[in-house]
Amino acid sequence: MREKITVVKVGGAVVEDEAKLARLLCGFCDIEGRKVLVHGGGRRATQVAAQLGIESKMVNGRRITDEQMLGVVTMVYGGLVNKNIVARLQACGVNALGLTGADMDVIRSHKRPVKDIDYGFVGDVERVDGDKLRMLVESGVTPVMAPLTHDGKGTMLNTNADTIAGETAKALAAHYDVTLIFCFEKKGVLADPDNDNSVIAEITRPDFGRYVADGTVAGGMIPKLENAFGAIDAGVERVIITLADAIDGKHGTVIR
Amino acid sequence: MREKITVVKVGGAVVEDEAKLARLLCGFCDIEGRKVLVHGGGRRATQVAAQLGIESKMVNGRRITDEQMLGVVTMVYGGLVNKNIVARLQACGVNALGLTGADMDVIRSHKRPVKDIDYGFVGDVERVDGDKLRMLVESGVTPVMAPLTHDGKGTMLNTNADTIAGETAKALAAHYDVTLIFCFEKKGVLADPDNDNSVIAEITRPDFGRYVADGTVAGGMIPKLENAFGAIDAGVERVIITLADAIDGKHGTVIR
Repeated sequence: MREKITVVKVGGAVVEDEAKLARLLCGFCDIEGRKVLVHGGGRRATQVAAQLGIESKMVNGRRITDEQMLGVVTMVYGGLVNKNIVARLQACGVNALGLTGADMDVIRSHKRPVKDIDYGFVGDVERVDGDKLRMLVESGVTPVMAPLTHDGKGTMLNTNADTIAGETAKALAAHYDVTLIFCFEKKGVLADPDNDNSVIAEITRPDFGRYVADGTVAGGMIPKLENAFGAIDAGVERVIITLADAIDGKHGTVIR
Repeated sequence: MREKITVVKVGGAVVEDEAKLARLLCGFCDIEGRKVLVHGGGRRATQVAAQLGIESKMVNGRRITDEQMLGVVTMVYGGLVNKNIVARLQACGVNALGLTGADMDVIRSHKRPVKDIDYGFVGDVERVDGDKLRMLVESGVTPVMAPLTHDGKGTMLNTNADTIAGETAKALAAHYDVTLIFCFEKKGVLADPDNDNSVIAEITRPDFGRYVADGTVAGGMIPKLENAFGAIDAGVERVIITLADAIDGKHGTVIR
């Protein structure tokens, strides 16, 4: 039987709300065994950029990362957000280690080719080094991953935190029984968007097709679930979509 | 015979000058065997703080780190400067890993007690975990250390980069034959401050006493050399003070 590992992804909305972050970190500390935390931080980056007089440009919800903005996200994701989370996990007895893709070359990416839109210094993941992450995890370390990668030629790149979490979970699936948890602003995938308690306990791929067809699943939930099924197809055991303060594996929607 | 390791400390003046940084990184890549890089970044922090409308307050050349400034140095040292160095070393084939003291709890400190001056969120080093650094180094990793530590209670602290380098070298001396190199704006300790080529090849403690008495060594050089002798007393094999583009161990002033 393979050892278990839990990969938790938490977005900017939680990271930047002190009370929510404290609850998330408590929940994360309580997860037994091997674990990895992946964080976002986009709202904080937008805020620091604004203070620096740099305008944030978004296209389809994705940040355009010009050279100035690359400096901002490198500071905010890799420094401010990452190191504060690491220090706070250390205070709870979790031996956290902050990582970007450049650190130990754990995630190599390439600058996204320009088609219709030039996203700038955005990195599409080429590979996650599961062996190095495993070496760290087996020595008792809990990686805390910022949404930054590098191109192997000396340039940092901005990479979506959901992607980092998904690709990391896939790479770890070669070694472990992986549970990937996406923290969400709802209790899970809802059967009725107006009823917060209508959480769908489990979604299989045939269910997903039906839910999309009948409109139960719509909008930003579709790529999130496609991403989840992609992880399942690549060997991740289960994906859970849940609230940031309910990451114990017993709440939310399970995707298998 | 113990294995050798080289700890190189490079200050903000080099880190922020693209041409100087490129030469330093080349020289660092060429150092054979185990190595650690410790960097500063104070000038960049001052610049980013100014852009954010935060005034930098210095007393005796030391930064007063209030809460806002702690955010700035955490961003700039731990993110911007550290990750760019890591990415560039990776591009040269050095398996760099950026670390603050919070990461893997490698450097624990406590907030400096307030006497005459309240330095704010400045950390005085309590201990460097040489065993964890050794574990990383023995797995082929090159630590790149930012001048940040943590108090073990969830708070990052700002710590002088010379101190980080000295304390790290001392902790590694339990395991290795350590060479500690301080990059400097001169070729070494000069016998004649007006003659850049009057480098003193080697200084012992009796020499140091004489040089201070006759005024050859004065000003900021005195604490730097005291720091160097402190490292020697704690088991570091040799300390070298040299130019950032001459860190091959063959140039500068050697303190034994």
